[in-house]
Amino acid sequence: MDVCNLGQEIEVPKNFTIKGVLELLMANTEEIKGKKLISLGIGDPTAHSCFRTSSAAQEAVVDALRSNKFNGYAPTAGLPQTRMAIAEYLSRDLPYDLLPEDVYVTSGCTQAIEIALSILSRPGANILLPRPGFPVYGLCSAFRNLEARYFDLLPDNQWEVDLTTVGHLADHNTVAMVIINPGNPCGNVYSYQHLKEIAETAKRLGIVVISDEVYGHLAFGNNPFVPMGVFGSIAPVITLGSLSKRWLVPGWRLGWLVTTDPDGTLKSPKFVERLKKYCDICGGSATFIQAAVPAILEEKQDVFFRKTINILKQTSDTCYRKMKEINCITCPHKPEWSMAYMVKLNISMLKDISDDIDFCFKLAKEESVIILPGLAVGLKNWLRIIFAVEPSCLEEALERVKSFCQRHSR
Amino acid sequence: MDVCNLGQEIEVPKNFTIKGVLELLMANTEEIKGKKLISLGIGDPTAHSCFRTSSAAQEAVVDALRSNKFNGYAPTAGLPQTRMAIAEYLSRDLPYDLLPEDVYVTSGCTQAIEIALSILSRPGANILLPRPGFPVYGLCSAFRNLEARYFDLLPDNQWEVDLTTVGHLADHNTVAMVIINPGNPCGNVYSYQHLKEIAETAKRLGIVVISDEVYGHLAFGNNPFVPMGVFGSIAPVITLGSLSKRWLVPGWRLGWLVTTDPDGTLKSPKFVERLKKYCDICGGSATFIQAAVPAILEEKQDVFFRKTINILKQTSDTCYRKMKEINCITCPHKPEWSMAYMVKLNISMLKDISDDIDFCFKLAKEESVIILPGLAVGLKNWLRIIFAVEPSCLEEALERVKSFCQRHSR
Repeated sequence: MDVCNLGQEIEVPKNFTIKGVLELLMANTEEIKGKKLISLGIGDPTAHSCFRTSSAAQEAVVDALRSNKFNGYAPTAGLPQTRMAIAEYLSRDLPYDLLPEDVYVTSGCTQAIEIALSILSRPGANILLPRPGFPVYGLCSAFRNLEARYFDLLPDNQWEVDLTTVGHLADHNTVAMVIINPGNPCGNVYSYQHLKEIAETAKRLGIVVISDEVYGHLAFGNNPFVPMGVFGSIAPVITLGSLSKRWLVPGWRLGWLVTTDPDGTLKSPKFVERLKKYCDICGGSATFIQAAVPAILEEKQDVFFRKTINILKQTSDTCYRKMKEINCITCPHKPEWSMAYMVKLNISMLKDISDDIDFCFKLAKEESVIILPGLAVGLKNWLRIIFAVEPSCLEEALERVKSFCQRHSR
Repeated sequence: MDVCNLGQEIEVPKNFTIKGVLELLMANTEEIKGKKLISLGIGDPTAHSCFRTSSAAQEAVVDALRSNKFNGYAPTAGLPQTRMAIAEYLSRDLPYDLLPEDVYVTSGCTQAIEIALSILSRPGANILLPRPGFPVYGLCSAFRNLEARYFDLLPDNQWEVDLTTVGHLADHNTVAMVIINPGNPCGNVYSYQHLKEIAETAKRLGIVVISDEVYGHLAFGNNPFVPMGVFGSIAPVITLGSLSKRWLVPGWRLGWLVTTDPDGTLKSPKFVERLKKYCDICGGSATFIQAAVPAILEEKQDVFFRKTINILKQTSDTCYRKMKEINCITCPHKPEWSMAYMVKLNISMLKDISDDIDFCFKLAKEESVIILPGLAVGLKNWLRIIFAVEPSCLEEALERVKSFCQRHSR
């Protein structure tokens, strides 16, 4: 091997990343006088002061740091008290009790995704991913030589999983299917009945369900959230989550991977040994942040949670209402969960815009508003809108989208 | 695939992990009246109050957290100011200036290792690892389907790399060789001349040098520390490091991977794109800890650093002196760096001990002292001693080792 050719020998996954697309959009945005840049692009509300974490959570971290007890290594699967606290927190919504050993503390939900896919991967394996979805799953599959096969979520059916397609896509090399519930990017939440059907499909296919519940408990609609772990005795479930969204601290990098699997398929000695050893090569989450988790999860911060939910309810309503006023945009489903939802572009109604990517680049350039093209999450000619944005900013951004659409309409 | 057989289908790497071996030792230790457990097993000095991080570093993290500016996502390669600060910090010891783009912020040095090995891996590739070494490299190679080939470090030659063997081990599928300098587990530091020879060997073989410098600047002997990046124009170097050891905060999970490569082999667009995309699937380090890094690296904490160095000098001297008093133990090299060193067991002088593992298990049971058997780092019938331990604890532990050896001597 010639070192000079290192770059040429290295294979780069072709996958989109949300951050990559947003960076490109940002780079193509010119400063427009009187129009400050507003991003509805990334699911990180912390840029807006109305989405600030609770001081109780913050001070729990300060206390853990200043105690001088948590500057050292934690066990790579996490501090015992952290695993215990997460097990108890998740067990509140399950018909069985999780054990601390079921919980692996991770550096945010991203690392939980990476661990889940890596430990399930084996030569020739494939995995079923939702479309639209979260691109880290596809990218991670590419790095782990897992073939990604995509099933559709049905916009006209509350973004439910197209289970018929799932059945057709799976074969004896399929190791898992992924669901994201509450939905990112769709802003929906699955019913008890639909989750049960997903579990039964997984059982029939002999696969694991990876349930990404990073937006768990961020509800402002009427449907209740049911964790997939409720159906863990039908098919084994790996549940992923984090403090990031509910506590508004994505930068703290505190997530979890949990085997919500009362029948113990995922507790076979070999599987547990592989999982534990895999944790040994991961960087993991800072020990003093882990140490604050029991206090954070225990605290009944109703006022704090209600405040977040109230703002999200307001901004999602604004978003839905404003988008409905725009002719060339269709909203199949009112968002009730999470921080994102999907709207459809009717390209034929626009005179000089060729597709969603063209739309987003021209919008950024002309209006200083960043929106993620749907193609980045798997749906061409759709848009993913993040509404976890300060209400007046959101109003302003949506006004600009409206006038942009009017200007470019046939 | 039958889900019930998931465990059986999963392949588990056979590799040792230090934490796995230490856990086994701990589990086999009985409480002995009047003998509290003392561990010379793990390179985490924070259990001892004499090894406490500086309050300036700690308060820099508190300030960043309380500013409410750093609860959100950082770019996956790290905050720009953090990358800049690390580039400047490392450039102080290099004949050229690193750029912020050369630096990738990681969740501790462990994640830096994982990223380095993963991005270099390709089908059929192999990597050259030092023996004795740090087992995470072997474990990570196993998970990434990189074949690990081991070259010897020469105890009678200040633990220098056996470069002849390196030449024999390498072939056209070799992607990199790893050095750990200052040495873990050997407590040595390589001379300028030896590092240059390593670079020239790497150049001849067409491979990258991964230089693990996590113990950089923890010197208490006379040899100066030369970063491998000094020779980055001979062969491309990837430098790994962290705050963990010098600032006594392994639990903060703040590390770095740096392409110290002035000729830009590792800056090819494809390589950089792969590295950046790889960062997108990693959890990374907490944003507010990253935000404190510029203040931490800038601060001239001479008093703090001197205190650590003075204790390590004292404890390493104690260790060397006490070990020399024990007949069945040989110390080929006085430690001058890092927190660990290797001593050799002369098994033939012991009457009822079969090997290093037997030695360590019996020692733990009879004396409540934990020492890592050399086999865990690749050298059978050696011991790895961590001397970053409170001085009186260390004296006590070594007394117990001595009486244990006397009791078991022929």
